[in-house]
Amino acid sequence: MNIYQFLDFLGTFVFAISGVRLAAEKKMDIFGAIIIGFASAIGGGTIRDLLLGATPVAWIQNSGYLYLIVSAVVIGILFDRYIFELKNMLLIFDSIGLGVFTLAGMQKAINYGIDTEYAVILGVTTATAGGIIRDILANEVPLILQKEIYATACFAGAFIYLLLEHFNINYHYNSLITIIFIVVLRTFAVKFNIAFPSLRK
Amino acid sequence: MNIYQFLDFLGTFVFAISGVRLAAEKKMDIFGAIIIGFASAIGGGTIRDLLLGATPVAWIQNSGYLYLIVSAVVIGILFDRYIFELKNMLLIFDSIGLGVFTLAGMQKAINYGIDTEYAVILGVTTATAGGIIRDILANEVPLILQKEIYATACFAGAFIYLLLEHFNINYHYNSLITIIFIVVLRTFAVKFNIAFPSLRK
Amino acid sequence: MNIYQFLDFLGTFVFAISGVRLAAEKKMDIFGAIIIGFASAIGGGTIRDLLLGATPVAWIQNSGYLYLIVSAVVIGILFDRYIFELKNMLLIFDSIGLGVFTLAGMQKAINYGIDTEYAVILGVTTATAGGIIRDILANEVPLILQKEIYATACFAGAFIYLLLEHFNINYHYNSLITIIFIVVLRTFAVKFNIAFPSLRK
Repeated sequence: MNIYQFLDFLGTFVFAISGVRLAAEKKMDIFGAIIIGFASAIGGGTIRDLLLGATPVAWIQNSGYLYLIVSAVVIGILFDRYIFELKNMLLIFDSIGLGVFTLAGMQKAINYGIDTEYAVILGVTTATAGGIIRDILANEVPLILQKEIYATACFAGAFIYLLLEHFNINYHYNSLITIIFIVVLRTFAVKFNIAFPSLRK
Repeated sequence: MNIYQFLDFLGTFVFAISGVRLAAEKKMDIFGAIIIGFASAIGGGTIRDLLLGATPVAWIQNSGYLYLIVSAVVIGILFDRYIFELKNMLLIFDSIGLGVFTLAGMQKAINYGIDTEYAVILGVTTATAGGIIRDILANEVPLILQKEIYATACFAGAFIYLLLEHFNINYHYNSLITIIFIVVLRTFAVKFNIAFPSLRK
Repeated sequence: MNIYQFLDFLGTFVFAISGVRLAAEKKMDIFGAIIIGFASAIGGGTIRDLLLGATPVAWIQNSGYLYLIVSAVVIGILFDRYIFELKNMLLIFDSIGLGVFTLAGMQKAINYGIDTEYAVILGVTTATAGGIIRDILANEVPLILQKEIYATACFAGAFIYLLLEHFNINYHYNSLITIIFIVVLRTFAVKFNIAFPSLRK
């Protein structure tokens, strides 16, 4: 397992946890939590693979994801109270997930011969669609559509990556810089409460 | 038409009826009822086929489903009041639908070379995704995420099937036992109001 | 660019505008508007292509759509107030979008060897699924399921097209007649407040 696989697993784990927490808030039962946890974790990659026609979708061919997500759900339920107090750590892990998924999604799209503009969109989709599906399942307006600089951090990261690639920066450095950039941007935005204004006051 | 096709059609019909009833509750018009009925009936199989890459999706190649679903919608609208009184029969038919769809979904996944763990998940998805889409269209938190032992019955049935298969039980007996098991488990759970506790009180 | 491509672009543009307007109503920020605008504009064609297995989906291979939709979002935000006053024009453009998308969807399905019944359904899906996704993202019961003669106009148009085709009417005249028929039917229905009754009073 290389560093990217590790980060991908970390992202999947944290996204599943985000699903469990919403399920608990909504007073769902354990199976509701598993379904929402699962959908949050694999939703983005699934939409990307469907749009690309890369089927069967990726996760269905790697049972590692299943065990990872079920573990996340169990841990999420057992340590509900403690996880709540780890808020800052969760934010950072969640942002790492965003970064890794954006990058991985963009690269897969490029490998499928998709133009750069849409590769960026597919990268952001990979990072954000899981959360959108999670919120729709819980009957909420998706968080990402409302106030957080979330998709924006992914878009900005994707541009940084393309810019550095243009200057022939080594792939590994570039990936690392992009992920760190997304993590820092998102974390700062949340901490200092930076957001775009809503369209109508 | 063999017994499985008959049960598949029965399941499709009853799932469409469940959509019509929700549409009526939400005071939709007849076209809303058709759309929700259709989505409830073919939603699960569609998601399964998309994830597998088995496209064009199955129902689109068999006009039988279309006539069946439209009939279900018409009958659902005309006999709205009577159907309400057939609650117990509907519950049993709906559970038969669950059983048949779980089994058919699992078997199709196995035929596509998917590992057993994910074949189980795809079976449960086939049985439950139609209802999830139905509830999302009606702007409700999906019933299945909340209180009923519904997905659980499907999971349990899938395990029974795999267990019996492991002991070389004849395919037809095994399928029948699995479906009956799911029907009995679900019906009892609903009648005696058995449910998992919600995560937070 | 021929007349159909022009009308397709017009439809895409107006559908994106409808997304932006809902985003503004829901007090989303600019990125929410872009996401909803995008989903409204390409949602129908995406669902059609996924069901057909026509992947990568069409829009992902034509960057024209991207620029068109982003322009629509920017114009939608900047001229929010004026657009509101162009209500009648928007209604007509939106109806043109319905007509063109129904026709294009039906024809693509026929090219993929889909039977006529389902080709009609895929045509209507192409025209309406974007709006359904838009409303789900905004956590509303899809407008189309409720009161407007919307899907009905698409269905009626599809039948007119098939009828005229049966009588060997020239393809171009037929397409034009179908689109005009849908536009007139929808516009009249909205203006004179014609709707199907809801199922339960």
